[in-house]
Amino acid sequence: MTGPDPATDPLADLRDRLRRFAEERDWDQFHSPKNLAAALAVEAAELLEPFQWLTEEQSRALDPARLAAVRDELADVLLYLVRLADQLDVDLATAAREKIVKNAAKYPVATARGSSRKYDEL
Amino acid sequence: MTGPDPATDPLADLRDRLRRFAEERDWDQFHSPKNLAAALAVEAAELLEPFQWLTEEQSRALDPARLAAVRDELADVLLYLVRLADQLDVDLATAAREKIVKNAAKYPVATARGSSRKYDEL
Amino acid sequence: MTGPDPATDPLADLRDRLRRFAEERDWDQFHSPKNLAAALAVEAAELLEPFQWLTEEQSRALDPARLAAVRDELADVLLYLVRLADQLDVDLATAAREKIVKNAAKYPVATARGSSRKYDEL
Amino acid sequence: MTGPDPATDPLADLRDRLRRFAEERDWDQFHSPKNLAAALAVEAAELLEPFQWLTEEQSRALDPARLAAVRDELADVLLYLVRLADQLDVDLATAAREKIVKNAAKYPVATARGSSRKYDEL
Repeated sequence: MTGPDPATDPLADLRDRLRRFAEERDWDQFHSPKNLAAALAVEAAELLEPFQWLTEEQSRALDPARLAAVRDELADVLLYLVRLADQLDVDLATAAREKIVKNAAKYPVATARGSSRKYDEL
Repeated sequence: MTGPDPATDPLADLRDRLRRFAEERDWDQFHSPKNLAAALAVEAAELLEPFQWLTEEQSRALDPARLAAVRDELADVLLYLVRLADQLDVDLATAAREKIVKNAAKYPVATARGSSRKYDEL
Repeated sequence: MTGPDPATDPLADLRDRLRRFAEERDWDQFHSPKNLAAALAVEAAELLEPFQWLTEEQSRALDPARLAAVRDELADVLLYLVRLADQLDVDLATAAREKIVKNAAKYPVATARGSSRKYDEL
Repeated sequence: MTGPDPATDPLADLRDRLRRFAEERDWDQFHSPKNLAAALAVEAAELLEPFQWLTEEQSRALDPARLAAVRDELADVLLYLVRLADQLDVDLATAAREKIVKNAAKYPVATARGSSRKYDEL
């Protein structure tokens, strides 16, 4: 029995908490990957909303009230993401580390430096 | 000097990797919270796309090729989320744990059980 | 002086009304294509929200209160779409008719019939 | 038998074309409001994607190739919007005109002038 330790790994911890949360409420029936993917897209848009009319500069200096609201939206996105990955049996941390390696190959430092001429960067 | 340990905490590890990734490419200039929030919404929609015409049942049983593509999209969403939280100086794990506590108060087991009559659940 | 007649063409009529609306409020400064595209994505997600936990069957039979809310969201999407197209000097009706022709070539009746194996259909 | 005239009203014309398109392909089975709302959100995000790393100023001056791609995405959003409204039996043009009236009441010229302190404007 190995695997990430919920005591030190927040993604494993959140996964376990959300499992209990859904089980206690009998919500697994609603948590199909299709529905969770829709909910995640909705939450991501709610996270975009407070930024939509700001300049980029303003977005780097949110006032405390707006930052607190944004923090809650960031949390919502993570919760649905962890729940969806769990329903699909995907290890998020491993998938993300592998994606960074792919992205590094896709955007070599030499050519990508200072250029935004790509759309799915990071 | 305390804080999450990147050796055991994948969110701290990803945050550090993405900082280096952006720094090496001089991409901080593009990574305003506004832009990252837009990119996150775009990635979340790309994650929704493969599910849009499936039934819920089909979404619970993806074939391996589609699952592999979905896994990459899950990773992209996490990467932008971690990067955005870092730019806003938000601790994602703490924010998410606090949000679960809020949600538990909002959807008590007694009344929420088996009901989907809420829109921002989890 | 030709072009669509706002008296019979609702897209031309809405375009003109939104121009006046923005001008009266000095809002052109906020209506960059980038900002309008973000606002449109946010509205489209708000339109998705009431459907996210419904079954497809339930989504075909909304109760009157929910339908009224959905109707307002449909309107919001159209308003931002018309405004964005206007800022980009795109004739929406012509673009849409041309896109249907492209789609008809992409999804010939003979092969597409009864199959959802495409992602950007219509 | 009155109603908008497809010969002069592009929204009525597109609605009719999309009905035929779906009927010929037997696609009504996939076009539940839930699915169409998801598809619309996906298309709106595809429309946002080309703008995500641009400055607002750059977004006001797209090069011809990018503008052509954006034009196709604008069309896709309109097509799904018209189709969804049709499935819900909503008259888009009327809904949009009524929404402008609501918005005018919500954002009086006197107080809204030059201020972006609202999130669902237009």
